[in-house]
Amino acid sequence: MASGKNTGWLTPVELTPPSLEDNTADVDRLLAALEARLGHGVDVPLELMRTIPAELREAAYRVRCVLARDRRRWQLTGIAGVAGGRRLIGAAVDLGTTQVVLRLIDLDTSVTLGEHAFENPQARVGPDILARIHHADSAEGLGEQQALIAEGLNQALASACKQQGIDTSSVALLAVAGNTTMGHLLLGLPPRWIVREPYIPAVNSPGLVSAAELGIRAAEGAAVFTFPNVGSYFGGDLIAGILSAGLDESEEPAVLVDVGTNAEVVLGNRDWLVGCAGAAGPALEAGAAEIGMLAGQGVIDKVWWETASGKLAYRTIGGGRPKGICGSGLIDLAAALFRSGMIDLRGRLVKSACKGRCREVDGERELVLVPAQDSASGEDLVIDERGLTSLKKAKAAMFAILETLTASVGLKPEQVGTFSVGGSFGSVIDPESAITIGMLPDLPRDRFRVLGNSSLEGATRLVQDAGLLERIYAIRDRITYMELNVNEQFMNRFSGAQFFPHTDPERFPSVKTQVV
Amino acid sequence: MASGKNTGWLTPVELTPPSLEDNTADVDRLLAALEARLGHGVDVPLELMRTIPAELREAAYRVRCVLARDRRRWQLTGIAGVAGGRRLIGAAVDLGTTQVVLRLIDLDTSVTLGEHAFENPQARVGPDILARIHHADSAEGLGEQQALIAEGLNQALASACKQQGIDTSSVALLAVAGNTTMGHLLLGLPPRWIVREPYIPAVNSPGLVSAAELGIRAAEGAAVFTFPNVGSYFGGDLIAGILSAGLDESEEPAVLVDVGTNAEVVLGNRDWLVGCAGAAGPALEAGAAEIGMLAGQGVIDKVWWETASGKLAYRTIGGGRPKGICGSGLIDLAAALFRSGMIDLRGRLVKSACKGRCREVDGERELVLVPAQDSASGEDLVIDERGLTSLKKAKAAMFAILETLTASVGLKPEQVGTFSVGGSFGSVIDPESAITIGMLPDLPRDRFRVLGNSSLEGATRLVQDAGLLERIYAIRDRITYMELNVNEQFMNRFSGAQFFPHTDPERFPSVKTQVV
Repeated sequence: MASGKNTGWLTPVELTPPSLEDNTADVDRLLAALEARLGHGVDVPLELMRTIPAELREAAYRVRCVLARDRRRWQLTGIAGVAGGRRLIGAAVDLGTTQVVLRLIDLDTSVTLGEHAFENPQARVGPDILARIHHADSAEGLGEQQALIAEGLNQALASACKQQGIDTSSVALLAVAGNTTMGHLLLGLPPRWIVREPYIPAVNSPGLVSAAELGIRAAEGAAVFTFPNVGSYFGGDLIAGILSAGLDESEEPAVLVDVGTNAEVVLGNRDWLVGCAGAAGPALEAGAAEIGMLAGQGVIDKVWWETASGKLAYRTIGGGRPKGICGSGLIDLAAALFRSGMIDLRGRLVKSACKGRCREVDGERELVLVPAQDSASGEDLVIDERGLTSLKKAKAAMFAILETLTASVGLKPEQVGTFSVGGSFGSVIDPESAITIGMLPDLPRDRFRVLGNSSLEGATRLVQDAGLLERIYAIRDRITYMELNVNEQFMNRFSGAQFFPHTDPERFPSVKTQVV
Repeated sequence: MASGKNTGWLTPVELTPPSLEDNTADVDRLLAALEARLGHGVDVPLELMRTIPAELREAAYRVRCVLARDRRRWQLTGIAGVAGGRRLIGAAVDLGTTQVVLRLIDLDTSVTLGEHAFENPQARVGPDILARIHHADSAEGLGEQQALIAEGLNQALASACKQQGIDTSSVALLAVAGNTTMGHLLLGLPPRWIVREPYIPAVNSPGLVSAAELGIRAAEGAAVFTFPNVGSYFGGDLIAGILSAGLDESEEPAVLVDVGTNAEVVLGNRDWLVGCAGAAGPALEAGAAEIGMLAGQGVIDKVWWETASGKLAYRTIGGGRPKGICGSGLIDLAAALFRSGMIDLRGRLVKSACKGRCREVDGERELVLVPAQDSASGEDLVIDERGLTSLKKAKAAMFAILETLTASVGLKPEQVGTFSVGGSFGSVIDPESAITIGMLPDLPRDRFRVLGNSSLEGATRLVQDAGLLERIYAIRDRITYMELNVNEQFMNRFSGAQFFPHTDPERFPSVKTQVV
């Protein structure tokens, strides 16, 4: 493992200018100084070799160097003058299947500058991981998806940089956390064998890769660091989440729950880590509920039951008329419907309790959350029983995974110290709601810590502190991955959890239905 | 320095195929096996990460790996199956200012396969180093020259491969030896400061660079190794020459002389090396003499004086009517003219001795070497006094450099054990002729060893034996470079050598003029 004293990515160097008596070549001169200071070798990409001679002269031989690294090596990925030199910027990227978020960080000050979220443009070729893997079976399909995400990142970089008055040529480093398949598609690696037994990724630790080689327009020599994967179903996004939640430094057993297309759970402490992931379906990520969408301007991210008025209330991001509802809003909504008795244990709408809000279309019941006159589209925003069913399956998967994982190490959920709850659909989950629907166990509320986008947060931390690289690889190496597909106990637990909150209500003593 | 036990570039590896119990990713699996065997890390370029999954499966997990390396790191640059896998080929390249020669070598057997020589296509933008550096002052000019040489190499690779029934996608490694400027232009590095005081190259040890990044079409992941330079006027071609001549392993002091656009001389033994280069002008490389050209079909490469018939005789490469004369032929010609008394001590044509061969055009004398009826063009092949003068300057520079260099370490030329004489214009120099004109010192003839293209030979050796890398860098680090531009003794010696054979004929006792 590459290691050193600096925790930042930037190393300032002052060189003796060349002379007839000291005619060492420019790049060799810079490397000799860096290596003398760091005590180990540094690689220089060709792109930078091409610009270093002019940079050094322009900066009067006093430069700031961006030194990126991975498990194997150190690499110079950017250079600028000390006095009056341009800013040097890093970008943290949460590379989601549905949504991608990019955040700019000043490498000199570690200050977060701006952020830009966008829909993963690969959605054009397939909504989910399986469809994209299938589409990548041909070299053209793989190349197309690689180009799509590179261009998406280019536009996000350009947009975020423009807002901050920075040129994209200042961006010397990108730290990308994504699931294994998204990581493969960004790097143009064939994801074919990820979904075929015995489920083998092309690479788990790709490390530093040239941004230019990926078609990403940034500084000359800029590199992309991809968070390492544990395996096909346990990606770098989760490693970033563990880092951000500090699970690997916890004294008592702690849990990280990440709610997205997959229900991903990690349990562990500073001595051991065990992880597990199961398909939760796209219920919480825009898919199943017809009104579901990613968090954003005009999207409902919070729903609650106003006992006094007997009304369903909601909050829209940025205010204004709602156009849809995001994952956290859906969990709130299901919880509110259940508490108010508008849905029963099985998640079916109870006509009498719903009063005027419930109607039947083509033999299927649906509930009007926002009537046409109040919505952005001028049409009713409704949730139907199909949407409620996929939500129920998603929450059941999450709970069953949690139970199976804790049981696998001989623990009960109540023996877990802290539950960190993250969601990668862009808004924060209310643990109270998640407990009400039986997604999370019914434990004292102070044990729950709400994280936002834990994967983005982990990537951000790395850009702020290069010293975390060692921890990232240590996390990766320490995790034991539990395969669920062949786990019978999991299937039983999954069935038992297909109720609101659970087949066995005594496990959720604090959850009470209040029939309206 | 990367080091290991293998002297070849190829390492065969047999992997345990992945299973549900052992689901390490493909690239990680291969690297773990390589690193366990080699005891150090190996880098994998992205291009290869993309192909390794399919390659491994196709080869049933038994592969031959090309492991290239430079001073800092080891890198996988090619992979093929053990059984029935495609051939893995390396290419040695002598990257001359005027001529480029590419040679294919089988990496499995180290056997030389084929060779292809071509004019450096950068000649289109400028005939010599200075013109090309000037043309590279703009980014477009540099890019244009980079693309020209890359395309030249592509065509040569394609042509040499085709002749051998090999696909260019088998070529996993190129070892390139060229002067500092040619190396810069191939890599797209700005050569601007090479010719500006204090004469600083961009890079002296570029090491391994991606072939694809240079626009060279070869195997996925193929790398180009550029022989390191000592400085602006002492390039990798000379390091390759030293390697090929074995100067760095010689017990007694030995000399390597490389005659080309520059007169380059290295003196040393296994303990020390001192080198020096001076502009010899293009006299021997096609330039000054109007009939001068690179060795090739129909070019005169040997000239001698037939005492019996009193005639100038010559040999044409491949036979047939001559179209011009190359460097070795010019040296022979001058020697023959001097021995026969057709030129005097100053290199002027002696009308009486030349008999019918000499004529005057526009007040300048010229000698007809091949009359119109015998030449390929149907025109007289002539050498004029201007051509003889530049030849004289070139030989004087060489001799003065030799004298200055030996004197600098307190030796006389006669104390040198072996003189290895190489020429980069494609044909071999006859030491007898070179002594006659005073280019080389008048020493027992068994001290002279004639090399062909010593730079190509050095590059070939490296492709045949990866273990030579350590020696190459050791040679580079050990050489003391002597700057001639500011050396007064050199200027005096240069003046003294502007005669055939020398101002002081007693220094050339064996050289006798025989007036015809």
